[in-house]
Amino acid sequence: MAPAGDNVVVSKMKLERMLSMKGGKGEASYVNNSQAQAQHARSMLHLLRETLDGVRLQSPPDFPFVVADLGCSCGSNTIYMVDVIIQHMAKRYEAAGCDPPEFSAFFSDLPSNDFNTLFQLLPPYGGVSMEECLASNNHRSYFAAGVPGSFYYRLFPAKSVDVFYSAFSLHWLSQVPDVVLDKRSTAYNKGRIFIHGASESTATAYKKQFQSDLAGFLRSRSKEMKSGGSMFLVCLGRTCSDPTDQGGAGLLFGTHFQDAWDDLVQEEVVEADGSFIVNKLEVFRGGSPLVVNHPDDAAEIGRALANSCRSVSGVLVDAHIGDQLSDELFSRVAMRATTHAKELLEQLQFFHIVASLSLA
Amino acid sequence: MAPAGDNVVVSKMKLERMLSMKGGKGEASYVNNSQAQAQHARSMLHLLRETLDGVRLQSPPDFPFVVADLGCSCGSNTIYMVDVIIQHMAKRYEAAGCDPPEFSAFFSDLPSNDFNTLFQLLPPYGGVSMEECLASNNHRSYFAAGVPGSFYYRLFPAKSVDVFYSAFSLHWLSQVPDVVLDKRSTAYNKGRIFIHGASESTATAYKKQFQSDLAGFLRSRSKEMKSGGSMFLVCLGRTCSDPTDQGGAGLLFGTHFQDAWDDLVQEEVVEADGSFIVNKLEVFRGGSPLVVNHPDDAAEIGRALANSCRSVSGVLVDAHIGDQLSDELFSRVAMRATTHAKELLEQLQFFHIVASLSLA
Repeated sequence: MAPAGDNVVVSKMKLERMLSMKGGKGEASYVNNSQAQAQHARSMLHLLRETLDGVRLQSPPDFPFVVADLGCSCGSNTIYMVDVIIQHMAKRYEAAGCDPPEFSAFFSDLPSNDFNTLFQLLPPYGGVSMEECLASNNHRSYFAAGVPGSFYYRLFPAKSVDVFYSAFSLHWLSQVPDVVLDKRSTAYNKGRIFIHGASESTATAYKKQFQSDLAGFLRSRSKEMKSGGSMFLVCLGRTCSDPTDQGGAGLLFGTHFQDAWDDLVQEEVVEADGSFIVNKLEVFRGGSPLVVNHPDDAAEIGRALANSCRSVSGVLVDAHIGDQLSDELFSRVAMRATTHAKELLEQLQFFHIVASLSLA
Repeated sequence: MAPAGDNVVVSKMKLERMLSMKGGKGEASYVNNSQAQAQHARSMLHLLRETLDGVRLQSPPDFPFVVADLGCSCGSNTIYMVDVIIQHMAKRYEAAGCDPPEFSAFFSDLPSNDFNTLFQLLPPYGGVSMEECLASNNHRSYFAAGVPGSFYYRLFPAKSVDVFYSAFSLHWLSQVPDVVLDKRSTAYNKGRIFIHGASESTATAYKKQFQSDLAGFLRSRSKEMKSGGSMFLVCLGRTCSDPTDQGGAGLLFGTHFQDAWDDLVQEEVVEADGSFIVNKLEVFRGGSPLVVNHPDDAAEIGRALANSCRSVSGVLVDAHIGDQLSDELFSRVAMRATTHAKELLEQLQFFHIVASLSLA
């Protein structure tokens, strides 16, 4: 447990080893709190398919067609999206009159991700024997592997991946900028755990961190992507240009989310890197993170907000203040949210930025 | 929990989803009970290196050099062996005056394996930035991925793996043969959980299962191996030709271990498959599975035997009789072993069969 005061004391290396969505299968687990992410991802399927239509079919298909989900977490969303991608590509091969290649999918996240839960959700491989396929109507048609590591560095061999997919992950920075923790710096965030309402210097420090992280991400992917491949990225965005107004995301987490992509991706980092061209960039109203059965039940909304929040930030919070205080914290979050249920349901809207990139 | 009586009631599909070494980091975990496997594996390094010297160097090295450990479990042994293999190959590239390729390692085991523990033992990737390498004297020089699935089926894309390594895993059959559970069959094993001392029909049923499993294993690997690649297999063996005398292994587990390889591999399954040639086949005195600090301390030997046994068979035993009865069972194993400590330490010797195969 970290000392009180400066709350954000996890070093970069430690952050890489511990950050994850909440594992297991409990009430606040990511598995049981990722319905909103599922809905949001599905609402962008037409944009994903557009990106996939631009991917070059390898001919003759001597090598496997390789898909990688970066920041896959441990729920069934990643399996669903990989299925969508592979089925779409298999249809394209069929339509082009080619034999489909073998497909291979890599599920990547930090080493602290609950890969055990993910692997148990994966249907067994059914591509080999007909008995296997027939015995189970729930099989997968691709080879699967989990890749533990930070996507700000290299994860895959050179020129080995056809399609990169990453949704709602690039807002997790590699570290809290050092100056934000330095009491002598103008960027010092006074021990607070969120950027919402912070000073301009603090915002700039986070923006620089994001730029440097995104540059590392793009540099690594540009080496790993096959010629003719594509990358489909979905990020949390803002509608307001002020990074210290975190809008919907601020209401939910009040924690560090990245600067809007429209200026960063388009004008700065991507162009500076020079490896990629932006095929598409779109801000997209993603909807509410709260998926509830009874919109009039304030207590359900309160619980949904607390669980949603804990499923993505709980591992960090537990590490900082311990399990017991964390229980107390999130039960208070639920209580407070219950008293503001109606306005939360109306105002809590996520905006997503969708980017489709290919090698320049 | 399964009903008493017929103890072995786990179906094939269920066995594939649940079999594993004991995960986590407790007293009976595999992580804390795999020192013997480590010693035994290290005693065979010279044979492994011989196999690696026969692997073709790809030139020019456009593609990654790929190593796969099948049945890796979750301890540090697999990381050690993969390091040995990659370092040996890197030296061979250097000695041949070639730039080394990128290296990629796949750690494969059933989906129930504790991949989380394995991934947390993996050092971070240090091949990209010099700072990363310097900041940590404990980094890895290869891309790593975990592959959940049964090695009796396909796990990897065609022609994608240079070196397969598998130690102490192929004795885990894909299922208990149906006839062994069938009261009307002559092969019925009367509800017993081990083959040691069983009838000839029972032994034949297990032998057939092993042959069919091994055939599936070889068929899959022959598709996945790159031309010029090699496979290094280590199995538990017997010195006696009677499969119902399980010798050292019988003393430890009294459970199903496969028929000796010398007739199976050489004369039957490998030749029938036709894809592979056997470069080397050697029976090897592997040593005792008991690693103790005080060979005169009977209680330590008793605990070591019970922990060693539980680390590899505990997951199955827990599933059959529940955690509480399992605790009781293994504490009785420890007590009985304590009273026979001296003779166990002398007689409990494993014999290993080492096979080195390449494509025909």
